[in-house]
Amino acid sequence: MAPNPSAQFSVNLRVETPAASPEIFGQLAAAISAVGGDIAVVATVSEGQTVVRDVAVNAGDQEQADRIVAAAGSVSGVALLEHYDRTFKMHEGGKIELLGSKTLTDANFDALAGSGVAAVARAIAEAPERAKELTLKRNMVLVVTNGTAVLGLGDIGAAAGMPVMEGKSMLFKGFGDVDSYAMCVDSRDPDEIIATVKAFAPAFGGINLEDISAPTCFLVEDALKEMLDIPVFHDDQHGTAIVTLAAAINACKLNGRNLAELKVVVNGVGASGVACSKILMEAGITDIIGCDTKGAIYNGRTENMNYMKDWYATNTNPRGIQGTLSEAIVGADLFLGLSGPGTFSLDQLKSMAAEPMVFAMANPVPEIMPEIAGPYVSVMATGRSDYPNQINNVLAFPGIFKGALECQATKISEGMKLAAANAIASVVSDAELTADYIIPSAFNPRVAQVVAAETIRVAREEGLARK
Amino acid sequence: MAPNPSAQFSVNLRVETPAASPEIFGQLAAAISAVGGDIAVVATVSEGQTVVRDVAVNAGDQEQADRIVAAAGSVSGVALLEHYDRTFKMHEGGKIELLGSKTLTDANFDALAGSGVAAVARAIAEAPERAKELTLKRNMVLVVTNGTAVLGLGDIGAAAGMPVMEGKSMLFKGFGDVDSYAMCVDSRDPDEIIATVKAFAPAFGGINLEDISAPTCFLVEDALKEMLDIPVFHDDQHGTAIVTLAAAINACKLNGRNLAELKVVVNGVGASGVACSKILMEAGITDIIGCDTKGAIYNGRTENMNYMKDWYATNTNPRGIQGTLSEAIVGADLFLGLSGPGTFSLDQLKSMAAEPMVFAMANPVPEIMPEIAGPYVSVMATGRSDYPNQINNVLAFPGIFKGALECQATKISEGMKLAAANAIASVVSDAELTADYIIPSAFNPRVAQVVAAETIRVAREEGLARK
Repeated sequence: MAPNPSAQFSVNLRVETPAASPEIFGQLAAAISAVGGDIAVVATVSEGQTVVRDVAVNAGDQEQADRIVAAAGSVSGVALLEHYDRTFKMHEGGKIELLGSKTLTDANFDALAGSGVAAVARAIAEAPERAKELTLKRNMVLVVTNGTAVLGLGDIGAAAGMPVMEGKSMLFKGFGDVDSYAMCVDSRDPDEIIATVKAFAPAFGGINLEDISAPTCFLVEDALKEMLDIPVFHDDQHGTAIVTLAAAINACKLNGRNLAELKVVVNGVGASGVACSKILMEAGITDIIGCDTKGAIYNGRTENMNYMKDWYATNTNPRGIQGTLSEAIVGADLFLGLSGPGTFSLDQLKSMAAEPMVFAMANPVPEIMPEIAGPYVSVMATGRSDYPNQINNVLAFPGIFKGALECQATKISEGMKLAAANAIASVVSDAELTADYIIPSAFNPRVAQVVAAETIRVAREEGLARK
Repeated sequence: MAPNPSAQFSVNLRVETPAASPEIFGQLAAAISAVGGDIAVVATVSEGQTVVRDVAVNAGDQEQADRIVAAAGSVSGVALLEHYDRTFKMHEGGKIELLGSKTLTDANFDALAGSGVAAVARAIAEAPERAKELTLKRNMVLVVTNGTAVLGLGDIGAAAGMPVMEGKSMLFKGFGDVDSYAMCVDSRDPDEIIATVKAFAPAFGGINLEDISAPTCFLVEDALKEMLDIPVFHDDQHGTAIVTLAAAINACKLNGRNLAELKVVVNGVGASGVACSKILMEAGITDIIGCDTKGAIYNGRTENMNYMKDWYATNTNPRGIQGTLSEAIVGADLFLGLSGPGTFSLDQLKSMAAEPMVFAMANPVPEIMPEIAGPYVSVMATGRSDYPNQINNVLAFPGIFKGALECQATKISEGMKLAAANAIASVVSDAELTADYIIPSAFNPRVAQVVAAETIRVAREEGLARK
């Protein structure tokens, strides 16, 4: 059986049917569904004696996509005019364009791009802080990966990470009006990544690290934070952590629980697992147990450790729980999945405390499917857009950087991250709050505004804003 | 006396005058001119009982700009509503904006920036050459400086070079429809610059090095060319060289001379001086003498040499001329100035061959002013927009990179550069060709088209095109 249909395998069918026989389009839809195709979008291209439509269908894999095309072509009365891979078509030629924000004319040519630029360059040489006012540094973020932890694909290399960086760049602009350069650094050596990003840093107002595997991501982020006077933010860690905390805040509100008293199990102690744990601790939670494939992380464990897990062992798990996930999860209130597909069983879920909350964020296939967990949870969230409560980083990074750039913050502090989480949570009003709506939609344009405003407020309170 | 007015010091005056007394605006213009201001642009903002105009005035320095403001404010009947530094105003907030080239909607969110991206990333991991089709690599150039040779300002540091890089980026887009990231690398160490650019290179379709001082620029360009399979182009060298050759081709055509037989003196043997000499040699010229502050470079000279000058000494100056510029210039047909303001005297010019050609390209102040040289030359060119025959790199780099990207060239060869120079020259028809019009205007939109077409043609001929 093919996996669940998704936009990863999406085929566009241009089909022509007789206008006089509307039932034929119904037969086409039935034929597509019969082979497991999920019709995502239908748009009418032209109408007359015949109707021409574009039908976008999601499939679970490439073979199913092929079967969908074959099925569509075999329906009597349907002319399949063309078909193409919709996702690839959308990526053709890249997704980013660079424009001058000032119009170039004969009259201003010299001032913008000719001899007039000398005066501006000299002004920055004399007073370097003016770069933030007179160059793209004002609103420009470097979005950079080394391609070692891309989506669910792992280490696929720098260049292959670019489609994700470009997507990120579009989201920065679309939601935060933040400009960014989508880039990749072809290196697995932390010291080399640090040196190269540092060398390119003066042009930027902020650095967004992305899809870099642990522990390199920790080393790179820590070193760059130390060296640079602009925000450095590893989104896989902090973006996920902020939105997870926002979801936890509203889930507690819905259930009338006290956030600080939650018992939490974090499955997956990689970059995002550690970051989620840290922000929950900042928010007051003390009973957190992390699990990896060897089970609970506890003080004294020696098997399969690394320097982040050492930190984790001494700073979490106050009850000193040892053993497997099945043992650690007993009586827990919140399961945070940041691991892989199907790693959380229904039996494990059933051993949690009453009204358990499950955030199963592995992508594209969660630790436990909502269809399975649904009857046994009080609140369920995933990383997917086709289920309620999507924990999507886009709720955090555009607003946070927008705020940090506007006030020329030197860093993004723990306080700014907590404020961002509270801001995201606040967008869902008490009246709107339900088990299926604990966090705003990724497309809610208000989110970035309130996140930016709170980010600025706290940056100023903490003395981190230069403006 | 203040230097010649230029866009470097440009002030915008918003002035209100009575509609019934048009002569007052004339008095204002006279007052501005009387203190040396050069009125560049006048635009009417509103008309009624009074007329409000924006008047952009170029000055020679900041003091003169201040005098212009004072003069405008003192004319009877003129209300000076506001004034500001026009150049700085135009640079406020930077000059580059990044846009998604695909529209982000609910329906395509997953395909462009969500789970759908995984399929595209995987495809590139499996077949890296698809990055040129599925990411911004298709049309993206890295425009990068280390800020050590910026305009006439010299070593002003990486961040201060950014206004120039941003201007370049605007020109790439405006003339070649080529996208680019304007960036700076904060290093003076050739090895570090090479390593940094190389690490970030996989995302790009080409590298444009800019405003990097010699000899670092040679080392960096040579090493990156060797390492990368995309064009690496130091524009200060090759852009200048190409446009200079285009101008020389048409100057010879105008005078009925054979290019290959020209006697040439190159004053200034830095990056662009060397590159201009090389392209003239590629074009068949053999009698070239380079001069630096110590005089002619000749085989056997030991004073004030470096490895590029060593190369120069053994490959130019076939007559073995020694001595000062005054001695080298005697009987020369073409003077190429790539040095500093006022370094070429009228006496020296008068010692050249009959119908001498002078390309005095120091910016903003040429080696000899056209006002002085004019009566004694057959053709005069400068780097400035306010005199005829501006040798402006913008005639070359947008079209060359446009062509190189379109055919996925692995490099920009000598043959491609010669073809570009001929293409630029060809835009001025025989009928149009005069001493004041040997090269097309920087704003002629046809130039990039013909340069790109010729670049592609030669890349294919030479087996350097991948598409």
